[in-house]
Amino acid sequence: MPQASVAGAVLAAKEGIPVILVGDAEVLKPELAKHQFELPIHHSSDVITMDDHAGDVRKRKGSSIMQAMQLVKDSQAAAAVSMGHSGATMAAALLVLGRIKGVDRPAILATIPSRAGFVALLDVGANADCRAAYLQQFAVMGTVYARAFFGKMQPTVGLMSIGEEEHKGNELTKEAHELLNKTPNINFFGNVEGRDLLKGSSDVMVTDGFTGNVILKLAEGEAKELFGWIRAALVGGSWLTKIGAALVKPALRSVAAKLDPSEYGAQPLLGVKGYAFIGHGSSDAKAVLSALRTARRSVEAQLLEKIAAGMAELPKAMVTG
Amino acid sequence: MPQASVAGAVLAAKEGIPVILVGDAEVLKPELAKHQFELPIHHSSDVITMDDHAGDVRKRKGSSIMQAMQLVKDSQAAAAVSMGHSGATMAAALLVLGRIKGVDRPAILATIPSRAGFVALLDVGANADCRAAYLQQFAVMGTVYARAFFGKMQPTVGLMSIGEEEHKGNELTKEAHELLNKTPNINFFGNVEGRDLLKGSSDVMVTDGFTGNVILKLAEGEAKELFGWIRAALVGGSWLTKIGAALVKPALRSVAAKLDPSEYGAQPLLGVKGYAFIGHGSSDAKAVLSALRTARRSVEAQLLEKIAAGMAELPKAMVTG
Repeated sequence: MPQASVAGAVLAAKEGIPVILVGDAEVLKPELAKHQFELPIHHSSDVITMDDHAGDVRKRKGSSIMQAMQLVKDSQAAAAVSMGHSGATMAAALLVLGRIKGVDRPAILATIPSRAGFVALLDVGANADCRAAYLQQFAVMGTVYARAFFGKMQPTVGLMSIGEEEHKGNELTKEAHELLNKTPNINFFGNVEGRDLLKGSSDVMVTDGFTGNVILKLAEGEAKELFGWIRAALVGGSWLTKIGAALVKPALRSVAAKLDPSEYGAQPLLGVKGYAFIGHGSSDAKAVLSALRTARRSVEAQLLEKIAAGMAELPKAMVTG
Repeated sequence: MPQASVAGAVLAAKEGIPVILVGDAEVLKPELAKHQFELPIHHSSDVITMDDHAGDVRKRKGSSIMQAMQLVKDSQAAAAVSMGHSGATMAAALLVLGRIKGVDRPAILATIPSRAGFVALLDVGANADCRAAYLQQFAVMGTVYARAFFGKMQPTVGLMSIGEEEHKGNELTKEAHELLNKTPNINFFGNVEGRDLLKGSSDVMVTDGFTGNVILKLAEGEAKELFGWIRAALVGGSWLTKIGAALVKPALRSVAAKLDPSEYGAQPLLGVKGYAFIGHGSSDAKAVLSALRTARRSVEAQLLEKIAAGMAELPKAMVTG
C-alpha cells in the first residue's frame, strides 16, 4: 500500500532517517502532499505486483524493486526496504547485489518475541529445500545478528529438530547437528523443539526455509487466533465477565502488543552484499517506520561487514561442504 | 507414571471400558489396592524406560509394551494404549501387528483444537523423512479418521506448505500436491499454511513427521507460554487489574481448557494392523481416561477396517509410487 509506505517514510524522515521513495512519482507525489512533506522520489513506473512471479524481476530492470536494489548497489542508498512481493525482493537482491563470499544461500531472518527477549529464527522462507551447509551458514549469520541486536556476546544457536538428543531429527538436521558441533565461533546449544521457540531456549534458531516459514506463520497465526478466542469468551460472558474484561484490557493488550509483528517491521535478507529488508505486504505506517528503523540500525551495526568476517572464519572445506 | 495409568484405568473401568493392566504386578497391585478396585493384570517384569532405545523392543519380547501389542495381536485385547516411550510403542506396534496393506509408513495423528472444531494433523512424528506417496496415504487415513471422529462425510484435506499456490513449497510438497490432486475418494483442499492450523481451514492436514512434530510442539508450547504471559501480566498488574483477573478467570480457563492436550489423551498410530495409541509420558489420570475413551471409540467406529478399505481403493500404481 503506497499510503502506508509513504506515511511510514514521512514518520521515519521526521526522526532523521533519510528516505528515498522508489516508485511511480504520479502515485507518490499526491500521497506526500497529504502529509505536506517533501521526500526525494526515484521514479519508476513499473511495479512488481503480488500477481507477478518472483523471476519476472530478471526482465524488468526498471521495476521499483530492481531500482531500489540498484540504488544500494550504486551506494546512493544504504539499504533497500520493500513492503511488497517478498519473492521478488529476494530475487532482485540476489540479482543486483549478489552474495557475500562463503554464503551459498541468503536467508530471511525473523525476530520472534520470547519469554525472556527475542529469538532470531532463520531461514523463514528463502530456501524451501536446504543442505546442512546452508544451516551452518545461517548459524553464523544469525549469531552476528543476535550479537548486534540482542546485545549478547555469545548468543546460543539451537538447531530446530524433533527431540533434544543428537540422533533425533531428519536426515538434514542429523547432518547439520554434526556440522554445527564442529563450527568455530558459534555457541552451539544443540537441538531445540517447537515448544522452545517462545520459551526462548536459544537466542538463534536455525532451520530450513520450509519449516521456518511454517513455524513463523503458525506462531503469528496462533497468537492472533488465541486472542480472538479470548476476546470472544470475554464479550460473550456474563456481565461480571464483561466488567472484568474492561479491567484487564490494558494488561491483555500489553501481551498482545508483544506478539504484534508490526512492532518489528521487516525481516532482513542476510547473506546478500547489501542491506535488504522484506516487510509484510499488509503493513501499516507504524510497521513501515519500524522497518526503516531496523534498516538504519543494521547499517549502523555494520551487520554486513560482520557477516562477511564471520563467513571468512569458516574453514573452507566447511563452506563448500 | 503407574499411579496415573492405574487411576485412569480405574476411572475407565467404572465407565464400562474393560481394561487389562500390562506391567509389573508388584508395582500395579498396590496401586490398584489404593483404589480398592480389581482389574486383570497381565504381568511383565520388564519395562522399556525413556532411557532405552526404541529398537530395544526387538530383543525384549517380554517387555510390557511388546506384551500389550501381543494381546492385541492375539485378540485378547481390542487396543493397546501406552503412556510411555512413543518410539518404542511405534516399534512394538510395527513389529507385532504389522502394516495394513498399501500403507508404506504408519503415521501418528494428533487432534488439534481449532476455531470451528478440530483438525486432524498427521504425521506428527513417526516418519522424519517422507516421500510424497506417504503423504497420500496419510491423506486417506486422516480422511477416515475425520469421518469417524468429526462427523464429516467429506472432510477436506490440506497439504501443509508455505504458500497457497500449487507451485509453492519444497520438493516433497510439490510432488505431494500433484499426487493428492489425483487421489480418488479424498476431498483435497489444496495447500494450507501455518496460520491455517488453528483457523481450521481444512479438517485434515497432512505433512511429513518432522514438520508435523515441530508444529504440534509449537502449537502446544505457544498456548502454554501465552497463557503464562497473560497470567503474569494479570497478577503483576494494578489492584484494578487483579479484580478484573478474578472476574475473567472462568472465561480464560474455558479457552485454556480447549487447548489442553490432556483433554484428548492419546494419539492413534494409524496404518498398523491393530489399534495402538500413544499418550503423553506426563499424563495424569484424566488424560489416561481420555486415551482409553479414544481407544474404545476408535474400535467402535471400526477405524481399522475403514482404513484398510480406504487403502484398497487407492490405485495400485499410486500406493507403490
